[in-house]
Amino acid sequence: MGKPVCVIVGIGPKNGRAFAERFAQEGYSVALLSRSTDYSSGLAAEIGGRAYACDVTDPSAIKQAFALIRDELGEVDVLLYNAGSGKFGTFDDVSDDDFERGWQINVRGLLQSTREVVGSMREKGSGAIIVTGATASLRGKPFTAAFASAKAGQRSLAQSFARQLGPEGIHVALVIVDGGIGTDEQSSDEGARLRPSDIAHTVYHLVTQPKSAWSFEVDVRPFKEDW
Amino acid sequence: MGKPVCVIVGIGPKNGRAFAERFAQEGYSVALLSRSTDYSSGLAAEIGGRAYACDVTDPSAIKQAFALIRDELGEVDVLLYNAGSGKFGTFDDVSDDDFERGWQINVRGLLQSTREVVGSMREKGSGAIIVTGATASLRGKPFTAAFASAKAGQRSLAQSFARQLGPEGIHVALVIVDGGIGTDEQSSDEGARLRPSDIAHTVYHLVTQPKSAWSFEVDVRPFKEDW
Amino acid sequence: MGKPVCVIVGIGPKNGRAFAERFAQEGYSVALLSRSTDYSSGLAAEIGGRAYACDVTDPSAIKQAFALIRDELGEVDVLLYNAGSGKFGTFDDVSDDDFERGWQINVRGLLQSTREVVGSMREKGSGAIIVTGATASLRGKPFTAAFASAKAGQRSLAQSFARQLGPEGIHVALVIVDGGIGTDEQSSDEGARLRPSDIAHTVYHLVTQPKSAWSFEVDVRPFKEDW
Amino acid sequence: MGKPVCVIVGIGPKNGRAFAERFAQEGYSVALLSRSTDYSSGLAAEIGGRAYACDVTDPSAIKQAFALIRDELGEVDVLLYNAGSGKFGTFDDVSDDDFERGWQINVRGLLQSTREVVGSMREKGSGAIIVTGATASLRGKPFTAAFASAKAGQRSLAQSFARQLGPEGIHVALVIVDGGIGTDEQSSDEGARLRPSDIAHTVYHLVTQPKSAWSFEVDVRPFKEDW
Repeated sequence: MGKPVCVIVGIGPKNGRAFAERFAQEGYSVALLSRSTDYSSGLAAEIGGRAYACDVTDPSAIKQAFALIRDELGEVDVLLYNAGSGKFGTFDDVSDDDFERGWQINVRGLLQSTREVVGSMREKGSGAIIVTGATASLRGKPFTAAFASAKAGQRSLAQSFARQLGPEGIHVALVIVDGGIGTDEQSSDEGARLRPSDIAHTVYHLVTQPKSAWSFEVDVRPFKEDW
Repeated sequence: MGKPVCVIVGIGPKNGRAFAERFAQEGYSVALLSRSTDYSSGLAAEIGGRAYACDVTDPSAIKQAFALIRDELGEVDVLLYNAGSGKFGTFDDVSDDDFERGWQINVRGLLQSTREVVGSMREKGSGAIIVTGATASLRGKPFTAAFASAKAGQRSLAQSFARQLGPEGIHVALVIVDGGIGTDEQSSDEGARLRPSDIAHTVYHLVTQPKSAWSFEVDVRPFKEDW
Repeated sequence: MGKPVCVIVGIGPKNGRAFAERFAQEGYSVALLSRSTDYSSGLAAEIGGRAYACDVTDPSAIKQAFALIRDELGEVDVLLYNAGSGKFGTFDDVSDDDFERGWQINVRGLLQSTREVVGSMREKGSGAIIVTGATASLRGKPFTAAFASAKAGQRSLAQSFARQLGPEGIHVALVIVDGGIGTDEQSSDEGARLRPSDIAHTVYHLVTQPKSAWSFEVDVRPFKEDW
Repeated sequence: MGKPVCVIVGIGPKNGRAFAERFAQEGYSVALLSRSTDYSSGLAAEIGGRAYACDVTDPSAIKQAFALIRDELGEVDVLLYNAGSGKFGTFDDVSDDDFERGWQINVRGLLQSTREVVGSMREKGSGAIIVTGATASLRGKPFTAAFASAKAGQRSLAQSFARQLGPEGIHVALVIVDGGIGTDEQSSDEGARLRPSDIAHTVYHLVTQPKSAWSFEVDVRPFKEDW
């Protein structure tokens, strides 16, 4: 194939699309993973990538999707773990099942996706795994009981990965998105929300960092954010 | 009964025993929850408490144990969530099932135990939920991939609880045990490990804090610890 | 004298008074240091302590006050560093001199006071130094440009002290007061502000912690605080 | 002049040189500030920049240097605050004067340099101020009593700046250099130390971030670092 391979787990019209467009532009062969391909198949066609259906709460679906990717595109060079949906509400409002799904999507899905890509990265002694975090990765508020708990577990896991895999030549990093995400076309509320392609600017930067100066945790927020 | 009720989830010869002894001394009716009652039944006899078998990875077992406690001892005033075992090792060494168990014990178990006690605490507008954390609550290292991820999720959940339940009069706090835990009888390595009864000193203090000045997060470590 | 000696640097009608009353009750001989003795002399008379004039921005004044204390009361067992005034405002509003005073009061004053008490604490292999911190110890906001910068420097210095002096048997801790401080008599706004005597409850607890389980950083806030 | 102006405070053969080279390459007119111009004058000649003598512990020297820069190069677009020397040692070994110098260099110097550039940045509604931090910005160890205290104060001040100036269109960020800094030519210890030009890669990235997604704090460390 020649082209390096970038897998993006979690595709929607905001971050997922922006990451896909950016890595395609930068010469990557891009695989888009999402529960359904309703949205992602059109995006894949636009950018010359491939869409895969994969429910990250299902371990066997993750195994199958990555097997297919390796078969069709080759070994993975960059994994962008962008799956991060969560149920908002206090613990009174959120069911135990929702807590479990949050953990599956944010923590176990990252674990299993990493297991799928780390073998070939180790063989090459290179690779990058970039995780999309949130303000909730750093603190739990009443209305983020389930989401923040999952995001905090994800951040810790990414830290364990970074500390273990860094010396093996694999760069693991976490981007803390600290603010509401808007659209690339926003205008009336300039500076109040993050533009997805601007987040992609920093995600791509992380992949280009020389290995003597790798970042683990990088925050991004709109310039007008009150933080 | 008259006596206030303290439930301790997670009983062993170190923290569990020390917390049980201290709260019994302070006049609490103490319920000891652990997977098996092999150890806890003897301790219960010593301190005049009651031992309950409860595997916190089993949601129905939690429900049953707390129902029995309410029935036998009355509504719970203090919950000490001390269940915290975890499988150590890098993500290469720890199975997906071990990760899941870690999450069940540290996060879901805390969630479900809190659901069991929070109703009556809300009615009274008082109560305390104290969680035993660890250094791993704050950071993920290669050998704590599963344990730290679970502990970080637990810390975030405890924060969400504290922020929500504080204004309702319920005190939620986290004790970060930053060091190896020894025994109360240790002598040769004085200052290198924490004595469980000394941890209990701070746990009990948290329960006595007046509500205008509640702590959420308190670290404890041996004076000789290199941190 | 027989009595252990507690020096409180920074005396006013809130924390300073509450700490003085509590340590006097607990059997300490209490020395009160403040810029002027207008307020502290009356308090000293009430609690059977002694008031000393000491402007902590003046290094020689610190030297003289502690020399007098050693002479009149004996070597110091507990130092409560409670001096923490600061000029609020953005960096546009606060002068360079105000920044410098903030550093002198919060950082250099703690350094110099510690130098004065650490000699005898080392000889005895025991002692406690408790520093009053604030939310601003943890983060800088626009209106706390000078105050937070000084408080962050103070927290870091206290950490260096704790890590160095802990193994020598001297307990250094920081109390993060996260909220507005009210009065002990408040009633209409119960739970919105910290009562000084409730903060003193935790400060005194820190001094009683057994050395196998010492805390470094403890937050306190009103139960109704939105944090 | 046409070219944007970048001022680098703190010039040596490592970071200072690397930042100067990078910003010169990117088309900036570069001003180099350091206590003496012994080293910086040669570097200035190499890159087509200008060297200015400026002892940042002397407030009037800062005023004069920036006045000269404005006169000779024009208003400042980017300020890289890289002055960060510090005296290492425990508080027993470091004098009060060394503590004060640490504060002057790391905190007051940043404050005064910011005052010099912020006027024109506000007029344009754009500009960047990037501060070089260190591991010590985040924690105080016994041997960094003076240095860490100054760096923590600096980090807090940078945070206050970022929160205040962000909404005005001025990007303030802090790079936490978490490891030993080597040279660009290092080879035998690949991955053990940071290469200055690799740090410059991330510093320059920060200046290019679109304003809907600005970072405040970014860590960089060698891939083999044990952290």
